[in-house]
Amino acid sequence: MSSNIFIFDTTLRDGTQGEGISLSADDKLKIAKKLDQLGVHYIEGGNPGSNGKDIEFFQRVKSLNLNAKLTAFGSTRRKNSVAEHDANLLKIVESGVPAATLVGKAWDFHVHIALQTSLEENLAMIQESFAFLKRNSMEAMYDAEHFFDGYKNNPEYALAALKAAKDGGADWLVLCDTNGGTMPNEIAEIVKRVKAELDMPIGIHTHNDCELAVANTLAAVGAGATQVQGTINGYGERCGNANLCSIIPNLQLKMNYDVLPADQLSMLTNTARYISEIANVHMPVGQPYVGNAAFAHKGGIHVSAIMKDSKTYEHIVPELVGNKQRVLVSELAGQSNIISKAAVLGLNVNTNNEKTKQIMDHIKQLEHEGYQFEAADASLELLLRKAFGDWKPAFQVESYKVNTERKQEHIVSEAVVKINIDGQQIYTVAEGNGPVNALDTALRKALAQQYPDIEHVYLTDYKVRVIDETDATAAKVRVLVESTGKQNSWNTVGLSGNVIDASWAAIVDSFHYALLSLQKVNVETPNQASQAQDYVGLTNI
Amino acid sequence: MSSNIFIFDTTLRDGTQGEGISLSADDKLKIAKKLDQLGVHYIEGGNPGSNGKDIEFFQRVKSLNLNAKLTAFGSTRRKNSVAEHDANLLKIVESGVPAATLVGKAWDFHVHIALQTSLEENLAMIQESFAFLKRNSMEAMYDAEHFFDGYKNNPEYALAALKAAKDGGADWLVLCDTNGGTMPNEIAEIVKRVKAELDMPIGIHTHNDCELAVANTLAAVGAGATQVQGTINGYGERCGNANLCSIIPNLQLKMNYDVLPADQLSMLTNTARYISEIANVHMPVGQPYVGNAAFAHKGGIHVSAIMKDSKTYEHIVPELVGNKQRVLVSELAGQSNIISKAAVLGLNVNTNNEKTKQIMDHIKQLEHEGYQFEAADASLELLLRKAFGDWKPAFQVESYKVNTERKQEHIVSEAVVKINIDGQQIYTVAEGNGPVNALDTALRKALAQQYPDIEHVYLTDYKVRVIDETDATAAKVRVLVESTGKQNSWNTVGLSGNVIDASWAAIVDSFHYALLSLQKVNVETPNQASQAQDYVGLTNI
Repeated sequence: MSSNIFIFDTTLRDGTQGEGISLSADDKLKIAKKLDQLGVHYIEGGNPGSNGKDIEFFQRVKSLNLNAKLTAFGSTRRKNSVAEHDANLLKIVESGVPAATLVGKAWDFHVHIALQTSLEENLAMIQESFAFLKRNSMEAMYDAEHFFDGYKNNPEYALAALKAAKDGGADWLVLCDTNGGTMPNEIAEIVKRVKAELDMPIGIHTHNDCELAVANTLAAVGAGATQVQGTINGYGERCGNANLCSIIPNLQLKMNYDVLPADQLSMLTNTARYISEIANVHMPVGQPYVGNAAFAHKGGIHVSAIMKDSKTYEHIVPELVGNKQRVLVSELAGQSNIISKAAVLGLNVNTNNEKTKQIMDHIKQLEHEGYQFEAADASLELLLRKAFGDWKPAFQVESYKVNTERKQEHIVSEAVVKINIDGQQIYTVAEGNGPVNALDTALRKALAQQYPDIEHVYLTDYKVRVIDETDATAAKVRVLVESTGKQNSWNTVGLSGNVIDASWAAIVDSFHYALLSLQKVNVETPNQASQAQDYVGLTNI
Repeated sequence: MSSNIFIFDTTLRDGTQGEGISLSADDKLKIAKKLDQLGVHYIEGGNPGSNGKDIEFFQRVKSLNLNAKLTAFGSTRRKNSVAEHDANLLKIVESGVPAATLVGKAWDFHVHIALQTSLEENLAMIQESFAFLKRNSMEAMYDAEHFFDGYKNNPEYALAALKAAKDGGADWLVLCDTNGGTMPNEIAEIVKRVKAELDMPIGIHTHNDCELAVANTLAAVGAGATQVQGTINGYGERCGNANLCSIIPNLQLKMNYDVLPADQLSMLTNTARYISEIANVHMPVGQPYVGNAAFAHKGGIHVSAIMKDSKTYEHIVPELVGNKQRVLVSELAGQSNIISKAAVLGLNVNTNNEKTKQIMDHIKQLEHEGYQFEAADASLELLLRKAFGDWKPAFQVESYKVNTERKQEHIVSEAVVKINIDGQQIYTVAEGNGPVNALDTALRKALAQQYPDIEHVYLTDYKVRVIDETDATAAKVRVLVESTGKQNSWNTVGLSGNVIDASWAAIVDSFHYALLSLQKVNVETPNQASQAQDYVGLTNI
């Protein structure tokens, strides 16, 4: 391998301890393939001793012929037993992987309280378990659980645990900050001490309970660790594991370590988003490096500066990690945000042009009334295309009506929608779990005859905000809607004095945008492709 | 002040640069009050030169008599002009706050590219702007924009910018990692150099683009910075600002700095969650220290260990930051906030009592289903009074029906409500500007004959959140409502698979609470008396 830092991905094992994360064997295979394309060096696939799903994964992953080294996870042998007869250790060997990681106690307090055995027995458990793996010709890594807490409490014992693994033949000593409570300066100091005491390859495994997992990993690498354990998007128990999506670019682009080839580093954003889709976990919009807002600019001064030189407000070139610059439009922004958006759409925009100025004034006026386009790219695109004469709506709304009724425990919403397509009136009725769902269903029904692909469009997020513009005569309601189609997802906005009417406006925009996507090739797709087949959409609003 | 680290909160200014965050003047006042209770030392309220909303905030915040020092934000004077005539600087002085922060360039590249002026003129802009603030007797802080990038490019010029601020009379030099691209070791080294060169109080302002904002802040404090700028929950542009919810406990509990009194630190979780509700931004379940999963343990080895000693898998005692342990398999008591709430209400609460335990379990179950009582004190009070047999509802709901219709520009909502008061059926119909307003009006009409004082109750805020509990079969909608009466205001919550039904439940709770207030003397009034006469209420939802 060409790198001098080895990336050990445990998304499929420690990552699945995160709340709300549950992966099938199929999901795990998809993720393993994606991780392999990214170029991580080790993929920890699971714990064959703990469940059948992981055994199935290790069987099926062989046919993928991955470049990454697959590793299985388990614990040191049970107390007062023999490694050769330990069911979990045997399953690790049977899984047929070339490498294994065993977790074992390094904190004397844990030996007493959690393991309830003697300090000597724990050392024997470590040494004998590693000797067993090495007799089975596996690469063997010792995850020294709670190493830093253990070291702070009893440094001699923590080091003795490492030495037991070394004596057993372990190839790597991986120092774990299991509870995530250690500070970066402590990590650096302790890793240095370990390097000095034991001449061994060192790994680092941190958790994010103090929002320091990335910093602690970098501190350990700075002190001599050469293996980094972490997960994509920082998935993991409690506050998560160290986030490889931040660690990899920090090591490579900021600290000049060799980690991944440049063309693979540029797959990072896509990898992060793909895995978040498979795991069905919303990615925070502001996630460093790979988030949708990581290179998004809102403030007017910032936008005018990045138009001159993007280095003014971007710490790296976003394309290095496969991300891209985005310009948000908001009340805080100047005109430059809108201009750059229109230019991206290929519209004939020109700041010296009277028409462009009128359009800008119109958008400013809408924002003043309470529209917010920064989270509604699709509505802004429709607005701009319409203003520049680049869009003809595929349908016209004539009227709608929606009713919600409750009698005892029975609740029902029903909507009636009347639209017009090329002079032909279409009149539909539908029920829903909520009034917005009923309207959405009735409108989809009205459009589906002419545009059958509209069936694949679902409402996937819905936000309501009462806005209180001080100089407006009455407060308004702003509704933001996210919709997902076969290939992508998009956001629209509606504003009205009536919450149902604002919702309706956002839905109408969403369907207009969906139909525009079917017509136009170069339509902007604000978000990445999603697995539309997994969505059933929101039906309760 | 008793602390040796000063916390400078910029949630209301830099935090609002975050994507999807938009705060009204009312929202800002609520947040300021909450921040003041937490005990931050400075609250940056906004930029009076940029918009009318911030001017309104600074006018209205005076009546809250906060302990924290309010600060206004702006830029150094425009190039080739005079500070005394700078409209934005004048607005800062006019805002009447005791302190101000001015951002000014410290990176020569930015002076050339973004500011397009000479290096000398930029230094004059800095010095003269601070001299102006000091002539107006304000505490003055220099936010040295891009200080670390500037220092790495041209250390002499970056230091000259600091010196210009010092010469102008600035009280603080705040070193900003504006683009968030600096590594912790660089931060430590550069802060040390600044401390050595300029004998001045130093502040630190970091961004999270490398997932290092917290670590960089700690590194700066370790190197001598004594003011920390950040936001609650790390809100801010792109990947966010430094997260005070992690920094404060790290400094205080891990690094032994004096930051907040212990009883105020224990308000941290509540503060973070409250502000996320006001900002209407989902809090990540795994957010360090304050997230719902920060001290959550899945079944198995971890749970059996924490049952023996929670220190085995918890880096701090969660109650220190007002959070609590969650065990995802079995119920553990410890809802001290609910117990104390019940005690305040004079209810016969006793943790050893079987009935109290049942009530706690019931509330836990409701929270599991998606209720959230943190921002709905009035609903919690009703629930507790009902459970302890201390409340008889003043009315019963039999049914409701609501219709919304649009034809061309004419939109109308109409609601029919059937209730029962002491066996007497009351049946009313009302129009509204939105379906919720129509329901609210119809219910008020039904109650008004018997309880005429109900006329003074208005709906004053309304929030909808689609929640996606992973183990629930279907997503639900949570509606939070704020109502205001003659003397006070209160918050209620409704949860349902239908947004109208959730809204209805929150309104019904609100009127129940209003009627309870009329009956009871010692009823809890969660919020301070509002200027009820100013409210006409929300009618549009």
